[in-house]
Formats: sequence, C-alpha cells, structure tokens
Amino acid sequence: MQTKLRMGMIGGGIGAFIGAVHRLAALMDGQIELVCGAFSSNAQKSKQSGEELFLLPNRIYATYEEMIEKEKALPENVRMNFVSIVTPNHVHFHPAKMAMENGFDVVLDKPMTLNLNEAKELKSVVEKTGRTFCLTHTYTGYPMIKEAKQLIAKGVLGKIRKIYIEYPQGWLSTFLEGENNKQATWRTDPKRSGIAGCMGDIGTHAFNLVEYVSGLQVVKICANLNTYVEGRLLDDDGDVLLKFNNGASGVLSATQIAAGEENNIKLKIYGEKGGLEWQQCDNNTLQLKWLDKPKEILRAGTGYVSNIVAHNTRVPAGHPEGYLEAFANLYKNFALTIRAKANNEIVKNEWLDFPGIEDGIRGMAFIENVVASSKSNEKWIEFRI
Amino acid sequence: MQTKLRMGMIGGGIGAFIGAVHRLAALMDGQIELVCGAFSSNAQKSKQSGEELFLLPNRIYATYEEMIEKEKALPENVRMNFVSIVTPNHVHFHPAKMAMENGFDVVLDKPMTLNLNEAKELKSVVEKTGRTFCLTHTYTGYPMIKEAKQLIAKGVLGKIRKIYIEYPQGWLSTFLEGENNKQATWRTDPKRSGIAGCMGDIGTHAFNLVEYVSGLQVVKICANLNTYVEGRLLDDDGDVLLKFNNGASGVLSATQIAAGEENNIKLKIYGEKGGLEWQQCDNNTLQLKWLDKPKEILRAGTGYVSNIVAHNTRVPAGHPEGYLEAFANLYKNFALTIRAKANNEIVKNEWLDFPGIEDGIRGMAFIENVVASSKSNEKWIEFRI
Amino acid sequence: MQTKLRMGMIGGGIGAFIGAVHRLAALMDGQIELVCGAFSSNAQKSKQSGEELFLLPNRIYATYEEMIEKEKALPENVRMNFVSIVTPNHVHFHPAKMAMENGFDVVLDKPMTLNLNEAKELKSVVEKTGRTFCLTHTYTGYPMIKEAKQLIAKGVLGKIRKIYIEYPQGWLSTFLEGENNKQATWRTDPKRSGIAGCMGDIGTHAFNLVEYVSGLQVVKICANLNTYVEGRLLDDDGDVLLKFNNGASGVLSATQIAAGEENNIKLKIYGEKGGLEWQQCDNNTLQLKWLDKPKEILRAGTGYVSNIVAHNTRVPAGHPEGYLEAFANLYKNFALTIRAKANNEIVKNEWLDFPGIEDGIRGMAFIENVVASSKSNEKWIEFRI
Amino acid sequence: MQTKLRMGMIGGGIGAFIGAVHRLAALMDGQIELVCGAFSSNAQKSKQSGEELFLLPNRIYATYEEMIEKEKALPENVRMNFVSIVTPNHVHFHPAKMAMENGFDVVLDKPMTLNLNEAKELKSVVEKTGRTFCLTHTYTGYPMIKEAKQLIAKGVLGKIRKIYIEYPQGWLSTFLEGENNKQATWRTDPKRSGIAGCMGDIGTHAFNLVEYVSGLQVVKICANLNTYVEGRLLDDDGDVLLKFNNGASGVLSATQIAAGEENNIKLKIYGEKGGLEWQQCDNNTLQLKWLDKPKEILRAGTGYVSNIVAHNTRVPAGHPEGYLEAFANLYKNFALTIRAKANNEIVKNEWLDFPGIEDGIRGMAFIENVVASSKSNEKWIEFRI
Repeated sequence: MQTKLRMGMIGGGIGAFIGAVHRLAALMDGQIELVCGAFSSNAQKSKQSGEELFLLPNRIYATYEEMIEKEKALPENVRMNFVSIVTPNHVHFHPAKMAMENGFDVVLDKPMTLNLNEAKELKSVVEKTGRTFCLTHTYTGYPMIKEAKQLIAKGVLGKIRKIYIEYPQGWLSTFLEGENNKQATWRTDPKRSGIAGCMGDIGTHAFNLVEYVSGLQVVKICANLNTYVEGRLLDDDGDVLLKFNNGASGVLSATQIAAGEENNIKLKIYGEKGGLEWQQCDNNTLQLKWLDKPKEILRAGTGYVSNIVAHNTRVPAGHPEGYLEAFANLYKNFALTIRAKANNEIVKNEWLDFPGIEDGIRGMAFIENVVASSKSNEKWIEFRI
Repeated sequence: MQTKLRMGMIGGGIGAFIGAVHRLAALMDGQIELVCGAFSSNAQKSKQSGEELFLLPNRIYATYEEMIEKEKALPENVRMNFVSIVTPNHVHFHPAKMAMENGFDVVLDKPMTLNLNEAKELKSVVEKTGRTFCLTHTYTGYPMIKEAKQLIAKGVLGKIRKIYIEYPQGWLSTFLEGENNKQATWRTDPKRSGIAGCMGDIGTHAFNLVEYVSGLQVVKICANLNTYVEGRLLDDDGDVLLKFNNGASGVLSATQIAAGEENNIKLKIYGEKGGLEWQQCDNNTLQLKWLDKPKEILRAGTGYVSNIVAHNTRVPAGHPEGYLEAFANLYKNFALTIRAKANNEIVKNEWLDFPGIEDGIRGMAFIENVVASSKSNEKWIEFRI
Repeated sequence: MQTKLRMGMIGGGIGAFIGAVHRLAALMDGQIELVCGAFSSNAQKSKQSGEELFLLPNRIYATYEEMIEKEKALPENVRMNFVSIVTPNHVHFHPAKMAMENGFDVVLDKPMTLNLNEAKELKSVVEKTGRTFCLTHTYTGYPMIKEAKQLIAKGVLGKIRKIYIEYPQGWLSTFLEGENNKQATWRTDPKRSGIAGCMGDIGTHAFNLVEYVSGLQVVKICANLNTYVEGRLLDDDGDVLLKFNNGASGVLSATQIAAGEENNIKLKIYGEKGGLEWQQCDNNTLQLKWLDKPKEILRAGTGYVSNIVAHNTRVPAGHPEGYLEAFANLYKNFALTIRAKANNEIVKNEWLDFPGIEDGIRGMAFIENVVASSKSNEKWIEFRI
Repeated sequence: MQTKLRMGMIGGGIGAFIGAVHRLAALMDGQIELVCGAFSSNAQKSKQSGEELFLLPNRIYATYEEMIEKEKALPENVRMNFVSIVTPNHVHFHPAKMAMENGFDVVLDKPMTLNLNEAKELKSVVEKTGRTFCLTHTYTGYPMIKEAKQLIAKGVLGKIRKIYIEYPQGWLSTFLEGENNKQATWRTDPKRSGIAGCMGDIGTHAFNLVEYVSGLQVVKICANLNTYVEGRLLDDDGDVLLKFNNGASGVLSATQIAAGEENNIKLKIYGEKGGLEWQQCDNNTLQLKWLDKPKEILRAGTGYVSNIVAHNTRVPAGHPEGYLEAFANLYKNFALTIRAKANNEIVKNEWLDFPGIEDGIRGMAFIENVVASSKSNEKWIEFRI
C-alpha cells in the first residue's frame, strides 16, 4: 500500500513567510504530509510551531541536527522521506549537506547557499550521495512558463535575439531593517544573506527564469548595483546587461525600491520570427507575438496547450491558479520523482522538470559575478563559475 | 493535543472535476485531512479512488450510507468530523440530511439540492440538528470580494443603484453531452441537474455573489432563458433583469455558449458616490471608481485593505492567489468554526463568513423563479421562496 | 483643379461640445474646409464663434435659414457644399430638410430627429432630393469595428447566437441640470431631447452599433428604463433584452448614473464558432475568441487586417488613433462620396460605409419602442417602425 | 481680423509617412492651413503631391530653396508663416537654417540634424535669428505625460531614484532595406540617417521623454548597441544604463527587432514616495503607485487633472485621443506661441511647452555618446555635449 511522502521541515516557524508557503505548496496536492520539523533555532519556538501544525510532540525537534539523527533512527515506514529547508541563506548549506549524507532527499529554498564555494561543495555532496535535490526557484513552476520554454525549444520563435527580464519590488523603499521587520532584517544582513541583497533575493530568480525559459546561458555581464536607502548594507537595486552564448543580448533589472510595485516579475523574449511575454500578475496567460499575424493569447487549462502545461495545471481554463500552485508544482514533481525512484520506476522527464543543483551553482555564480562587475571599471566581464 | 479535522468525502472519484478541487481546497491549509470516502456509486471505482488518495482500506466505502454508519461507530477521535458532498445535484439532499442527522457537519457543493422543496426540508434538518453547514459558492471566498462587501456595507459607495453581473462560459457551445463528456452529460440532464442547466450551474453562483456583495435582495425578476444547442434538454444561456429591495436595478447574464469564453465571472456595482468592479481573471484586484477622483486599484495582500482580506489571504501582494485559495477560504473558515464549536470557544464573525443554508434556499428559489419567469408572458414576477 | 469641400455648420458655437468635435473630425484629413456657419440661435454669439474660427465676416450668419438662402445664392465654386448640423435634437429636422431641399448635402448629429414621425418625413426628403446624408453614429467609424462587421459577414464566427452591448457613463449621477450644466440641461429636457434621455443620447449609439456590426436586426425587445436622480425628467439608465431576426438574443445596457464610468462602450458578439470583443477604451484592438485555439488580438494599422481597416486608418500599428479619428472617418467617407458624385465618378462601397437615413429611422424607432416597452406589462414587444 | 497661420512644408510628398502625420496634426485644430510646399527632391512628384493637397499651382515648389525665396517675396498676409520640415535627417539642417535666416519660424522633425556639429550650428542660428523653433518629439505632446512631468516637479513622488524606459518595435526584424521599403531604406543608411539607426530613430525619443518628464539630466551612460539583421549598416537594437544628475539610475532600451512589437514606448519612474507608469498604447492613462495606499489611475479629460492636461485635451474622459492629437498639441502650442509673438502678446508658459533647440542638442549628443560608449571598453562614459 502506497502512503503519502513524509516531509520534515527545517526553519519556517511561526511568523515566517516562506516556510508557510512551502507547507501550502507541499500539502495541497495530497501527495505529501508534514511529519516532523525543527522550525526555529529557538527550541521553545520550534515546539510551539510544531504544535500549531498538529505534529506529534516527539517529532518536533530543537535543532535540525537532532531531527536528522532521530528521524534516521526511526523505522523506514515512519521516518521522514525528505527535508524542506526554509531558513535564511546562511543556514542552507549545512542542513542540506547533513540531510543528504544521512540519506534524505532535500528541497532547499533559494539562493542555494551563502556563497559560490558552498554551492560547489554542495554539488559534490549531491553527486556523492545521489540524493534528489530541488531548489525552489518558484517561477519555473508556472505552467505557462513551461509552455514558453517548450515553444522556444521547438524553435517557434526562431533564433533568439533579445531577452528582457524585470523584477520590480517596492517593499524595501524605506529602512525597514531599522524597524525590526524580520524579512527585511536578515535579507539586508551580509552575514545571513551573503554578498548581495536585491540581486541575491530576487535577481537570482530573474536570472534563473531567463536561462530556464530561453535554454541559453549568460556568458558576459555588465552590472550596475545600487543602494538607495541610507544605512542599508547591501544593494537594493540593480541593472545588468547580458550577453548570451548564442549571440543574443538582454537586460535584467531587479529592484526593491520601486515604490508601489509588488512582485510582478515579467519576461519578454524575442526571436527572428516572433516574441513572447509573460508576467506573474497574469500568470495563466502567455502572449505570443508574431511578425505578420495577430498576437495570440495562450491560456493555462485549455485544450490547445502542451501536455507539460496540463501536467502542471489543476483546474480548467478560467479558474485562475497562482503563486502557490506554481510552488506546489515543484513539490509535486519532486514527489513524483522520489516516489518513482523509491519504487524503481521510470522517472518521467516532465517530473524532473524542477530546478536542481546546477541551477544553484549558476545562481550563486550570478551573485558573485554581478557584484564583481558592479565594482569593476571594465565594461564586460565573463560569467565565471 | 489538537489534531487536524477529519474529512470524509461523498463523490469525487477518479476523473471528477469538483471533487479534486474540494480536496485541494481542504488540504492546502493543513487544518484538515481526508480520512475516508465513498467516492462513487460504483464500489470498485470508489475503492480505487480511495487507494489513490492514500486512504486506509477500511475507510474506503462502497456507499455513503455505509460510510456514515460505520464512521459513526468509530471512536470519536478517529471518526470523520464532517463530510464533503461533491456529487451531482440529485445526490445532494439525501447524504446531507443523513450526515447531519448522524451528527456530522456538512460541506455541500452547489446548487444545494435538486429543487426548492428539498432545500426547504434540508433547512429544517439544519435547524433541528444544529449542525454546521457550508454551501460552496466559491466566489464568496475571494478576499477582494469580501473587501467589496465590506466597503458597500460601510456605505463608501453610497446608496446602491445599479448592479451588473455576467458569467460567461463557452464550453457548452457544441453538443458535448452527445460525446460522452462526463461534466456535460449530468449538467444537461434534468434528472440529475434539476429544471435549469446554465442557470442552475453558474447562474446560481452569479445570483449568490450579487446578494452577498451588495447586501441587497432581489425582489422581482424578468428572465429570458435560451437553449441554443440543438438536442439539449436544458437552458444553456439566459439573461435576467433584476429589481432589488432598495430600488436598485440590475442585469444578470449567464451563458455557456459564449464561444471562446472561459470562466470570467465579473461584477460591477454602482452607488450614488462611486462604483466597484471585480472579475475572476484578475481576482486579487478590486477597482474602486469615483465620481470626481481617480480610480483606485485595491490589491489583496497589501497593508491598506481590511482585516477580512488579510484573514483570507496567504501571501503578500504580488504573489497571486486564485480559485483554489478562494475555495480553500470556505474550508478554512468552516474548519475554524467547527473546531471552535467543538472546543466551546467563541466563533468569530469572520470565520462564519461562508455561505450556508439560507444561501442555498435563495439559490434554489432563484432557479425556480427564473424558469417560471422565462415561461411567463408577464414582464415582472415576484421573487418567491 | 480640385479644391477642398466647403462645409457650413449649424450650431456648435463657443463652448459647445459636439460642434468642436465635428470640426476636428472634418478638418483633420485636409479634404474639407469650414467656410460658413450659423453657430447659435443668438446672432451675437454666432458672430463671435465664426470670428474665432477665422471665417470671413460675410459668411457668418445669424440663423440657419439665412445661411442656407445666402449660400445658395453664391457662385457654385464658392458656396458651401454641405452643412453639418450639430444642434440639440429639436433643431435637427428643420435645418436638415431645408438644406437638402436647397441642394445641400447633410451631416447630422444623432439621434436623427425629435421623434419617429420627423424621421420618416426626413427619409422622404432624402429620397425626393437625392442628397447625400450622413448620421454621425461615431462608433461605426472605428476601423476595428469595421473589421468586426466584415469578419461576421464572412461567417468566421458562424451563426450569431449572443450579443451583449454596454454603454456606461457616470456623469449624470447627480442633478447636473440643476447646476446650469449646458450639456446636462438640454439632454434631460424632453422638449429639446425627445421622450428618452439616456436611451436617446447613448442607447441609440449602442443599438446602432449592434445592428451595424452584427448585420442583424432587432425584432423584439423587453425594456426597463429608470430615473435614479431625483427631479430628473427623463430616464438616466436602462436595460433592454433583445431578440434578433436570426434567433440570436442579447442585452443592451446603457446608463448615465454608473458613478466613476467615463464612456467605455463595449460590444461582445458570439457565434457558433467563436466570439469577438471590442471596447472604446482600447479601440485599436479587436479580440477574436475561439472554441479550441488561442484568442487572437487584431490591431489596427497592421498588415494582416482587411482593406477596410487600412482605408480607415492613418498611422501604422502602435500609433494609437481614437475617437476623433473614428469621427473623422465618417467625414472622410462622406467627403469621398459627395466628391465622387459631383465628379460623376464611381462611389466605392467602402466610402459609402457611413450611417445614413435608415440608421436614423431605426434609431428613432428604438427610442419609441424602448419607452413603450418600459411602460408595458407585456414582456416582449415587437420592434415596430 | 485674425486668420489661420500659414504653413509651408518641406518633404512629405505622396507615400511619405511622417509628412502626412504632420499635416493631420497641423490641420486638426483649425489654427493652421497648408499654403505651400516643396514636397520632394523630385519636382514632378512635388507638383503632384501639392495638387493632391489642393494647393494653388504657384505655391507648389520644386525645391525648398525656391520655396523660401519666393514665399519671402510674397505679401506678408499671403506668404507662409512657418515651415514644417519632414525630410530624412540629412536634409534637416540646411532648410531649417535657411528658413530661419529668411524670417520663417520652423517645425522640424527629429532627430534634429545629421550630427552634433550641425545641431550646435543650428542653435546659433536660432539664437541669432530669434525665430521660434519646434522639434517634434511627439511623446512630450501627450497630456498624461505632461501631467507626469508636473507631478514630479511638484515632488509628489519624492526624490527620484529609478527610471526605466523601453521603446520596442519589431518592424526591422528582417532586411526590409533590401526590399525597397522606403522607410527602412533611409533609416538604415548612414548617409541619410547619421551614425545611429535605432538609437537615432527611436532611442532619441526615449531619451528626450525621460529627461522631459523627470526634469533630470543624464550625466553618465554605458551603452551596448547591436545589429542583428545581417547586412544592416546601423544598429537595430540597444540598451543603455543611465546615471542622472541627482543620483538616480536607469535603463533605456530601444529596439527595432523585437518581433511582434508595434510601437509601445513605456516609461516608469520611481521616487522615494511612489512611482508612475505610462505607456503609449494606453496613452490617456497615468498610473500612480504608492508605498502604502492603492494605485491610482489618472485619466485625461477628467476634472481632477491639472490645467496643463485640460489645455492639451480636446474631448472629455472616455473619448480616447491618441498619437495624432499628441502630435497636434506640439503644433497647437507652437501656433499659439508664434501668433502671440506676432501680436506682441504674452506667451503663456503652457504654450511654450514644446521641445526646442536644447532638446535637439541633447538628442544629438545622446546619439554620439551612445555610439561612443558602445564601442568603448570603459564602463561609464560622461555624457558630453
């Protein structure tokens, strides 16, 4: 008899933003249950969080080390199958490494690690342990993003020439980190966030989305990072000129000081024959633009989109899905993958379509390269890993 | 120690549309688990469905009668707390009645019953048993719909004069019921669907939304129902002129033959001072229009909307929620209500904000009145219950 | 040697709204010049208006009767070729009749006359004199409306089943006619406006647009007119159920008390194979919706739309044209027609594509029928002329 | 007695794009008449064009030199008041210089000259002759662009931090200049267009709009220009990072190879307190976004916008104006200015609000600076004039 997959969570206690999102995404499809957690570096807070999530008292742990060890000791049909790590960036590498080395698959929030070195080391852990690893670049979970990727791969736009991506937020327009705002505080703290602020937090999402959809790789960059809010320790805004491995060029703009903007990441890609446009605030739609015929509006949940869309959609067209469902697609495909592996069944390509260790490596390299470029007087720097 | 609430499901086996939606909505927030079900009138199909949902074999039942009886016999901390009924309309009344009479709370899909008489009888069951009853008019679950209701109640638009609601679908533009389409077949079959097709399936949603948001009641109607697809047994289109109890007038249009339309229910309400507009395809937005100042765009997840929005929103502004989250809000508030009742705690008003037996009564009356009006040569008929 | 066509204007003095619009529309394309006018029933105001418009003093007249007589006496190559009548409704019939009987072609603002009887009489004048007559139902001048008409005529949507038209305004939400607002005062005065307010002013536009685009005729109506603003003498709001001569049904809603609305007339038509949507605020776009393929967005000024669009467009796609250009299309086609007639050249069908006397007859019949229907207890009344 | 202002045109013969636009814009408001022209370097074509425009035979000239000389010899109340120059870039400087030196005011299409040196020389001509000079950067003519400028000047957004402008076109995605396309041919020919293609044609519009609305000046740039279409002699795409004199940063992207794009120039500006957004395809709308209150949608033609909007708007809100009306605003304000000067009346500031010689200087400097930057390995170059 099959059972739900059992998830343990590291981080994501009461009041956390992304932890709650991970739980919603994991639970929604009925394939996964939360069985244990180490929700906070504060043991009391972890306990309280676990109770609110209806966990058994003995499955609520004070530390992730304790969780991994004790869960490992449980019978196979009881212990967690994988961990979901939703802590700030500086607590990504160690729990992920420990979990994999102790036989657990891992879902990890982005950016993957605190720096590129940790990322490379984590890659070797993945390779050595053979565990399944998912990095939650949410935007790749949207069905119409997957359609876009597929259409480009099929060549319907012709050779790609131009890519624009913008990720505008406004919530850091003021010195929130001085007002005890939890989300702002760790994201603007180099010790917990790494060497980049805006570029690490949302720039990496934009970078990942560009490479995921286009199938291209960035080879040169020219970056200008800014810090607009006085007293802030990391960049809160930046623009990056991009050159791709096929000769295409592009612009990546990410900002957290665009006052009045929410979170509308938007992607436009143009090839020789046509272009496409997608934006999060209208995520069930993909616009296809053509040189000499009317623009087409493709919609999730319809009969005319590809199977990959159908696989990542839950309801018919016109019943809007959103951010949580995109996130849930990562978990669903991760769950299908680890279940198939456990059952020695074939893992379908469409299940494997979630970001992994290579995305993490490139994402961390993006951070280090844009920071270097921004400081450099040289116009173009190579994208190095 | 608190546990998740335990749900049993009636209907919703493999391949069903709305059953899967109910499960997604119920599970998402981590307050409810599915513990048992009678998923089909076909016992074998019920078993298979239950297995796919990871249920214990002894909690998968051949009939809803069996489920209610056997669950009732289980220990209190094991047996289901409530049933979710997601069958076609002709199998709404009996299981709902039986469940309540055996001590179970009920979530029931709309329209409430096969006819108004059943609805009235069900009301007396609710009153007699005192059970908590939720009718899933999904659209009332949208946070910006709740904001709209609250703004009107506070009088910001002034006295309401005009209401337009449209619910356009195109999927029944052809004779799908002749092509073995499961959804089309029962919805166009008077024995399973009742005396109305389009008006029962989506017209009731539109009617409910109008009264929910405006706080007004329809008192007179003038309806024109049509059947455009040859061979179809029920209406697939209709327009209804409305008069409200405060003197306002309105139009309700619902159609399933608007070729190319998906499911974009749209509401516009105008008062003496301003108007509002909401549509499902942009559900996180509420437009407020004013006589002499700029239109305002209110968004879910922001700091400036009311508490009721925050209570029914999961992620910050710019992370779009959608249909499943609106549906989940019904389950979440239902769950908070029955948990509080079970614990003898106060039930907050914001938790009680889900459609109930009175909505069901008025919805069934709507069906009977529009069918009568459409057949009548009289222009206006009273809205009778 | 060809010269510009010479226009005389009746009404439209300083401060008038629609007179200024007519002049902008007439002058824009360089085919017409304004040579004379009787701009006001007040001779002094007429004189002042003419001077501001750079007219020669001897071509500014105190009354339209004077203008018609004196212009007639001028040499053929000097006198006006046609008159443009932009007075309130009660001063439509007489000047139009007099102008045609004295050999002048006529452009007349809508609604055509004060009542249906005048309309019929005007028709006989047109027939007797053989003059060219244009009624300025502006919305038929939009290029994408012409594309819509042509697509339906070609059958691309299949047999038409459903038509919705809405014309929402909010500017009469308060008792403006009590505040000396010129536009409000005459439009709400039965002596100058006729038996309908909102339905005459904008309902006729909506009605005309529906029949123009669909190529169908309304055969039965069921109307509900309302007056929401206290003290107002005519309707300021109304909804009309429609039945068409091919079996299609529809709804026409026009209102002037939708607080916060500007002027966004919007048309949706659905056939067996697909639907279309157009709205004034995005007038260069026509949406085509399909049962089983992506929605298409057709745009004015592109290479893929029909010749009729190109003929009525001035600039390439992406250079938005608007209301004044739509209006100018009526004048341009009228000018091309009368010039061709004068030169004994063939008048192309695309030039004749402006509203004329038959549109005026049906528009006036619409007014009388909706007022009658609104007062009637009978549900459906025949559309009578 | 006042008369219309008399315009002569240089260039803009049959089949020309921008010449026709200038005429529509000039004639629309009834303040200007076209009295003469030298429409083509081909005398026969000039004659034919003049005849189609209903000019007197003796006012149609073979060359602009002839026109300027002969018009100068006509009586003051007959001869043209100003010239409108609508030729390709290499025929801008000489006719403009000659016209001004012979006492005529000038309207000149952009970019101002073939290179920066000519621009500087033209500036000295303007200064020496004291003629009124208008450079047709159309986008500054949009009423909501003027509102945006005014709101920023008043400080409603606080100190400006970030500016994004994009100007995407797709029409040069293929080698149109090899297909005898007139517009493509001269625009991609360095002899007629200058050293930049896309950046000269539309990049200058974007640059001008940014400085006009923000009131800021670009001080440093980092540019990447590309030529994607094989065989093309000039850039057809480019991105420019910007630094402004107040510390703000920005991105300017202009492209003519974004397949499927029309002409939707779009501007977003963010300050400490809020942001604004405007785009040409919805030109009657200005979005204002705020840190902590709902987004506001400001609309042209309403009562709540500033006087500058009203002065540049012809019809009430909801009657869309567009590109031609924006263009006409330049002509209208130019006409009001030269008439007032001629009459020795005060020239109102709102009339002077059209682009002039300084805009031209900065625009030509923009072209030279971006081309230099694109070739440089240095990251930032100073914006030099």
